[in-house]
Amino acid sequence: MATATEADAMRRAIALAARALGSTSPNPVVGCVLLDARGRVLGEGWHRRAGGPHAEVDALHAAADAGHDLRGATAVVTLEPCNHTGRTGPCAQALIEAGVTRVVYAVADPNPTATGGAATLTAAGVDVEGGLLAGQAAEGNAAWLTSVRRARPFVVWKYAATLDGRSAAADGTSRWITSTESREDVHRLRAEADAVVVGSGTLRADDPHLAVRGGPLRRGAVTQPLRVVVDTHATVKPGARVLDDAAPTLVAVAQDADTSHLTGVETVRLPRAEGGTGLDIPALLDVLHRREIRSLLLEGGPTLAGAFLAAGAVDRVIGYLAPALLGAGPAALGDAGIGTIARALRLDVTDVSRLGPDLRVTATPLAPATAPATEEN
Amino acid sequence: MATATEADAMRRAIALAARALGSTSPNPVVGCVLLDARGRVLGEGWHRRAGGPHAEVDALHAAADAGHDLRGATAVVTLEPCNHTGRTGPCAQALIEAGVTRVVYAVADPNPTATGGAATLTAAGVDVEGGLLAGQAAEGNAAWLTSVRRARPFVVWKYAATLDGRSAAADGTSRWITSTESREDVHRLRAEADAVVVGSGTLRADDPHLAVRGGPLRRGAVTQPLRVVVDTHATVKPGARVLDDAAPTLVAVAQDADTSHLTGVETVRLPRAEGGTGLDIPALLDVLHRREIRSLLLEGGPTLAGAFLAAGAVDRVIGYLAPALLGAGPAALGDAGIGTIARALRLDVTDVSRLGPDLRVTATPLAPATAPATEEN
Repeated sequence: MATATEADAMRRAIALAARALGSTSPNPVVGCVLLDARGRVLGEGWHRRAGGPHAEVDALHAAADAGHDLRGATAVVTLEPCNHTGRTGPCAQALIEAGVTRVVYAVADPNPTATGGAATLTAAGVDVEGGLLAGQAAEGNAAWLTSVRRARPFVVWKYAATLDGRSAAADGTSRWITSTESREDVHRLRAEADAVVVGSGTLRADDPHLAVRGGPLRRGAVTQPLRVVVDTHATVKPGARVLDDAAPTLVAVAQDADTSHLTGVETVRLPRAEGGTGLDIPALLDVLHRREIRSLLLEGGPTLAGAFLAAGAVDRVIGYLAPALLGAGPAALGDAGIGTIARALRLDVTDVSRLGPDLRVTATPLAPATAPATEEN
Repeated sequence: MATATEADAMRRAIALAARALGSTSPNPVVGCVLLDARGRVLGEGWHRRAGGPHAEVDALHAAADAGHDLRGATAVVTLEPCNHTGRTGPCAQALIEAGVTRVVYAVADPNPTATGGAATLTAAGVDVEGGLLAGQAAEGNAAWLTSVRRARPFVVWKYAATLDGRSAAADGTSRWITSTESREDVHRLRAEADAVVVGSGTLRADDPHLAVRGGPLRRGAVTQPLRVVVDTHATVKPGARVLDDAAPTLVAVAQDADTSHLTGVETVRLPRAEGGTGLDIPALLDVLHRREIRSLLLEGGPTLAGAFLAAGAVDRVIGYLAPALLGAGPAALGDAGIGTIARALRLDVTDVSRLGPDLRVTATPLAPATAPATEEN
C-alpha cells in the first residue's frame, strides 16, 4: 500500500512531468520524486526533452548534487522505469545501483521495447508497487499512451464558435469570434502538439500561419509543431503563410493531384476516403505516426473535423465558445456521417473554464449512446 | 449608511422574495425583514401572490403574531414601500402605524401609480435609506422592472443544442438532446414565466404541450403560464396538444389568416413584420403586455428566436448545451439579421452551471460591439 506521503509525491511528480509537455516527443513526459525513509524529499526530476536524461536519472542527479545518500530511498515515478538502453541507459538499473529499495510508479510502460522495468527491479530485491494515481498520470501522458496503444497520434480537435455554433458570420468574417485569452490558449495547445492540421478550406478562407508564437516558447526547449495541410487537390498557393520557414510544413494531397506548383514543398500522396471526397484519415494518421508525431492539434475547418470524427479519430474536443450569437454563417462542424439523434457523438465533459469572456469546454468522445425512452415534452 | 446586519437582512429579504417567482404577476416579488434596534429579526414576510398581502404587511403580521413590539423597529425591504391603495392598503402607512422608525429598501419603485412611499415615510419622520443591494434585488425582479420600464414583457430565450449548435439531427429527431436535469430546469423556467411562446415550426415538428408539470407546482400557488403560439398562417391543427385545457392558449396569426378551423381557440390578429415573413414582434409583445404578461419564456424554434433577437426583444438567453456533436441538422438559431462578424450579438455570460451532463449558460445581450483591430492568426 502506498502511503499518503507517496501519493503527495506522485502528485508532485505528475506536475513535474507536465512541465515538459511538447518537449519530449516522441518520448512520454515523466516526473520522479525521491523520498527518504521518513518521507522527506531527496531530489526531484523530470524528463525535459527527447535525448535528455530520463526523470529518474534527473532526480538521482539532483539528489546526489544535494549530497544525499540514496540507500534505502523510495522513488516515486509517473511511469514504470524503463528497462532498455536507448539514447540513455536503463532507469531500473540506475535506481538499483543508487541503492533505492522501493519504487512506486503510476502507469505501467506499454511500450514493448521498454517494458520489464518492474520485473528487473523486483528481481534485484526492490519493493515495487504500480498503479498509484494511474488515471491522473495517464491523463498527463494521454498523447504518448494513445500513440503507443493505437499506433496513431493523439488527436485534439479544437474549434471556436459562437453559442449558436457558428465559426464565422454569413459573409465569412470570423475575426475575432473568440477573445485574446482564448487565442493565447490555442497557442499553448499548438506548443504542446507535435503537429497542427488544417484543411484547404480554412487555408483559403484565413491563410493561417499556424506557427507557435509568444509566451509558450519562453520555456526554451519547445520546438515548432509540424504544420500539416490536408489539401486533396493541391490548391495551396506558393505564397501561403503556412509555407513560410517559421516551422516545417507537410502538404497531404490525393494520389492524382497536380503538385507541379509546389516546388520545395514537402508533400505526401494519400488515398481518398472510401465514399468520400477528402483524403483517407487513417492513412494520414499512419504517415504522421511513422514520423513519430505523437500528438496532433486539429484546427479545422468544419469539413476536415467532420471527416476526423467520422473516422473515430478524435480523442479530445476543446471548444472555445464565444458569448455571441450569429444566427447565420458556417457551422463549426460539418458532416460527420451522423443522420439521426440516436447516433449523435456523445462526449464526456471533463472541464469547463472561463477564458476572458469565453467558455472553454474540454470533452472526451464516448461510444455512441442508445436513445433514452420517449417522454412527455 | 446601512449596517452589515441590515445588508444581511436584505440578502434574506431578496431570498424570501424569490420564493414567489411566478406567483405574483402582474406584481413584483418583494421580501421584507423587520429588525429591532439591536438587529434581531422580529418578523419576515414576502408577497406570496397577486391580491395577497404585500411583503411589509406579511412581515408585520408575522412579528405581531410572535408578540413583538414594533416601535423603533427597522424594516428592510427589497422594493420601496408602496404609497397607493390597490387591492391592499399602502404599505408606507402600515409601517408608520406600526411604529417602524427606519426603512431600508433596495430598489426604488418605478411604477408611477405606486411610487412616493419613501417621501410619505420621510414626511412622517421615518429614517429612510434606499439603494442597499439594489443590483441584486433588481436582478430578482428583472421581469417586473423590465415590464414597467419598457412596457413589454421580460423575454427569456431558452434553447437546447449540441456543442456544435444543432437543435436536432439531420432527420429532424431531437429527443433527447439534453438531459432529464435540463428538461426539469426548463419546467422551472416555465413555472416562473407568465407566458411560454413557440413558433409554428416547432409546433409542427414536436407537437409540444408546454404546460408546467411536476416539481415546480408543489409550491401550490403557481398558475399555468399562458401558452402563446406564433402562427402567421394559422396552421395549428385542432387536435394539437398545445390547445388542450391544461393551460390557457393564445394563437397569434396574421391579419389575413384563415382561422375558420380554430373554433373555440383564442386568437389574436397581428400585423406582419416589416420586410419579414413572420408577425411583428413588438406588436405581439404589446398585446401580451396589455394582458399583464410580465415575463415570457421563448422556447423557439430558430426562426422565431431569430425574429425576437432581430427585434432587440430578448433580455436573457439560457442555453442548455448537451455534450454531443451532430455535424448536421437544424441550427438552434436562425436568421437574426446579422450578416457580418462585427454585428454579432455579443452577450455577457452571467452564469455557467452543470446540469447533469449538460452545461447551462445564462447570458444577457449587450449592445453591439465594435470589431477589435486585426491581429496575427
